[in-house]
Amino acid sequence: MDSQGFREAAISSIDEIISYYDNIGTREVVSTVEPGYLRKLLPSEAPDQGEPWADIQKDIEAKIMPGITHWQHPGFHAFFPCATSYPSILGELYSAALSGACFNWICSPAVTELETVVLDWLAKLLGLPECYLSPGPTRGGGVIQGSASEAVLTAMVAARDKYLRETIPAELDGHDREDTIAHKRSRMVALATSATHSSTKKAAIILGVRFITIPVRAADGYALTAPVLAAALADCRARKLEPFFLTATLGTTDTCAVDDFAGITSALADFSPAGSPGEVWVHVDAAYAGAALVCPEVQTATNIAQVASFHSFDMNMHKWLLTNFDASCLYVRDRSWFVQALTINQAVYNNTASDGGLVTDYREWQIPLGRRFRSLKIWFVLRSYGAEGLRAYIRRTTKLGEEFANWIRDRPDLFEILTGPSFALTVFRMVGKSGEGEASSSSSDEEERNALTRTLYETVNRSGKMWVTSTVLEGRFGIRMMTGVRTTEQEHVEAAFKALVDAAEEIHTS
Amino acid sequence: MDSQGFREAAISSIDEIISYYDNIGTREVVSTVEPGYLRKLLPSEAPDQGEPWADIQKDIEAKIMPGITHWQHPGFHAFFPCATSYPSILGELYSAALSGACFNWICSPAVTELETVVLDWLAKLLGLPECYLSPGPTRGGGVIQGSASEAVLTAMVAARDKYLRETIPAELDGHDREDTIAHKRSRMVALATSATHSSTKKAAIILGVRFITIPVRAADGYALTAPVLAAALADCRARKLEPFFLTATLGTTDTCAVDDFAGITSALADFSPAGSPGEVWVHVDAAYAGAALVCPEVQTATNIAQVASFHSFDMNMHKWLLTNFDASCLYVRDRSWFVQALTINQAVYNNTASDGGLVTDYREWQIPLGRRFRSLKIWFVLRSYGAEGLRAYIRRTTKLGEEFANWIRDRPDLFEILTGPSFALTVFRMVGKSGEGEASSSSSDEEERNALTRTLYETVNRSGKMWVTSTVLEGRFGIRMMTGVRTTEQEHVEAAFKALVDAAEEIHTS
Repeated sequence: MDSQGFREAAISSIDEIISYYDNIGTREVVSTVEPGYLRKLLPSEAPDQGEPWADIQKDIEAKIMPGITHWQHPGFHAFFPCATSYPSILGELYSAALSGACFNWICSPAVTELETVVLDWLAKLLGLPECYLSPGPTRGGGVIQGSASEAVLTAMVAARDKYLRETIPAELDGHDREDTIAHKRSRMVALATSATHSSTKKAAIILGVRFITIPVRAADGYALTAPVLAAALADCRARKLEPFFLTATLGTTDTCAVDDFAGITSALADFSPAGSPGEVWVHVDAAYAGAALVCPEVQTATNIAQVASFHSFDMNMHKWLLTNFDASCLYVRDRSWFVQALTINQAVYNNTASDGGLVTDYREWQIPLGRRFRSLKIWFVLRSYGAEGLRAYIRRTTKLGEEFANWIRDRPDLFEILTGPSFALTVFRMVGKSGEGEASSSSSDEEERNALTRTLYETVNRSGKMWVTSTVLEGRFGIRMMTGVRTTEQEHVEAAFKALVDAAEEIHTS
Repeated sequence: MDSQGFREAAISSIDEIISYYDNIGTREVVSTVEPGYLRKLLPSEAPDQGEPWADIQKDIEAKIMPGITHWQHPGFHAFFPCATSYPSILGELYSAALSGACFNWICSPAVTELETVVLDWLAKLLGLPECYLSPGPTRGGGVIQGSASEAVLTAMVAARDKYLRETIPAELDGHDREDTIAHKRSRMVALATSATHSSTKKAAIILGVRFITIPVRAADGYALTAPVLAAALADCRARKLEPFFLTATLGTTDTCAVDDFAGITSALADFSPAGSPGEVWVHVDAAYAGAALVCPEVQTATNIAQVASFHSFDMNMHKWLLTNFDASCLYVRDRSWFVQALTINQAVYNNTASDGGLVTDYREWQIPLGRRFRSLKIWFVLRSYGAEGLRAYIRRTTKLGEEFANWIRDRPDLFEILTGPSFALTVFRMVGKSGEGEASSSSSDEEERNALTRTLYETVNRSGKMWVTSTVLEGRFGIRMMTGVRTTEQEHVEAAFKALVDAAEEIHTS
């Protein structure tokens, strides 16, 4: 494909993408193909001779689109949004064109430096304490990771390294040191709650350290509180386990609960003073809801200033902040914790700038070596929307969630809210045919509500016009309704609510 | 930015990208900015109000380009290529437009299914044994990872899990089991050679297992051989360490050496029979040179059929196979090894297709949960070039490397080859002013050659017309000359050689 061929192919692709976005609402939200559909449509081997672009492009609509679930569809109310935008797509385009491995500063200084600058911009927008900014007093800073899973893994590796460094006497060496490390490793434990995203448990599995789940309850809004954490820490101490890591969440996966940051700080201070050797590293997972921190009212409501006493913070611009997957923004209070844990030198990577310590080499802040130019799309999005544009989007979609919750509340004959609205997410379920609300809670009643809700869930999802996902909260099956997608407007939420009401009424009368 | 605004912005971006590629040879290869250059050019905060696209776009050339090192430049002879192509850029464009988190099959069946199909296509092209194909006899298959570092980490986690499962008696439970696991973990060791990429060591650090480096020597062409491996294994046994993982390399980072796969197989068979409980997992890192396996003559020369006795294989399409970073293609002989080690369930991800075991959920084959639609660009590249087009490109750039090595050999008064040509890479250095070749090797002579070569290296890199990187082999400082970039033609290699000769002659006479 030469330059002219690329120009024609690219314009044709752009036009197809525009047409896709302009008409996305007319498609079924979720793909309805059968498993294995695509293998039947494609040859079993790559072609020997190259094919013209026109033949390739027509397979997008013919063979790929039937297998696409449309995350930008206005009826996509599942999981969390993966909201993209035109400026972000342009960022990916330039990033692809400027492709390089970019593991060192010298491999493209702009890739490193733009990342540092836009992550500082973002930290200020989110109201993060100064300690997470690269020019800040504690030599902190941000780095773009591929996903929140990689972010928590990176943080946990650094936390383990810091813990061992601080708790093993420096004078130990040789076999004694190895034995002590092996013994410590077998006692170290990472903590998270039953509402924490599974990525913390996965990180603990990868590291080979113990993992303990702290149960959180409806009574606490599924948030971690001081007394519950204090009890878990005391239990660890009684079992001679050594807690070294805790994930606190701003916006849990199931319900968008926010853990009590001040309570966590105080429970930890009672366990081991902050800053003392072997302190528990607290990582804040704000993967989805962290986006809402662009609004000052959310910074206040979530007590974000409190994260100054924690160690790392992560949010995904690729969920609710109009940026393409992937752009997980991980901040650390002292970047030397990452660098000490993750630096490996090899002669082939030596260069004057790195060797002189003049520059940031982000390979020392992450698991992989190479990296894409991901800051471009963040830069384009922040500049195209501006802070006010991002706030307007977050507030608009949050309000849609609140309106939806109000409508649910206005039909107590059909529905009850389990949690929310919280960050554009409401979890609700059906009430029994008797039409009674929360007061009634015999176990047969619970079973009936679960069964009715499951039927409702399957019914509305079969329509193809909307997609909701579900969860189970203390045995209660709930439907998660999320209103954060960029294309979702009031009319779409109204239509979704009407579909839910119609289906629920039919279920009650059948 | 509305659809019309996007169309105009995208076409303008496409034109800028075409102009960039058409004129890339006129730029300096390596950025010459000073550390911190970009912060001075940008505001300290994101704008409050959105900015028009034209203002953003003009900053690409004005502020970003000065900080770009041009990996697609014909004079880029550093590290390895990160060769992109127009069809691959189109793949990224569509991938961005169809953005979703895609952790489950149902999140977009096409994302999962196209990945399985194109990785089977690629496995056949590379001549991998059938056991690595998804319909193969051992239930193997491929998955796209972000980088070779993530691939080796994933493989090592699975290997550790498999080893513990196979060597810890099933009847052990409770504290006895925990103690046995802790003890085993403290004895387990991952092996690699002194020429293996540092990512294996990094994976061992992340897992918290021991790591042993097996030294390889010039006499063996820096490849791992049977006697050297056998000695390392015997040493482990004598120290009561338990080797569970070995990285074998097809194309090492420094010199593109290929380990002796048959020798590795036989040394391991003597240590513990293949397929026996606790066998050593062998991961093949073919990150760069694996691309050349599209040529049948390379399949034969590297004895690729032998990898049937190993466990996992990884190659990066984003290095030498015309595909944008990131596309690291990881294959495993039995996918249940990944799934058993990396699966974590959470209610919110439940769905009929996954729960019924009908489909592949790639989140169970990798560290992250979410994933991009990376198979699109691979599909576009394989179809646009065809197998013959890819072979022609690999053979053309390999031949450029051979020609370069011949020219170096033809000037024994100036240069000597340290390794290669191997996979478009030659490592060479200057000879002393006395003009003598390898025969002379007193230590003062070695120092002179190192100093001269370092001067040559700095001189040609200062020109801005070419970029080579360096390495150190058994104390000998060598220049790595790589000819794999797509835009590199014979005239560019000739020009690079001429620049090296001119500089070397001047160094000899000064």
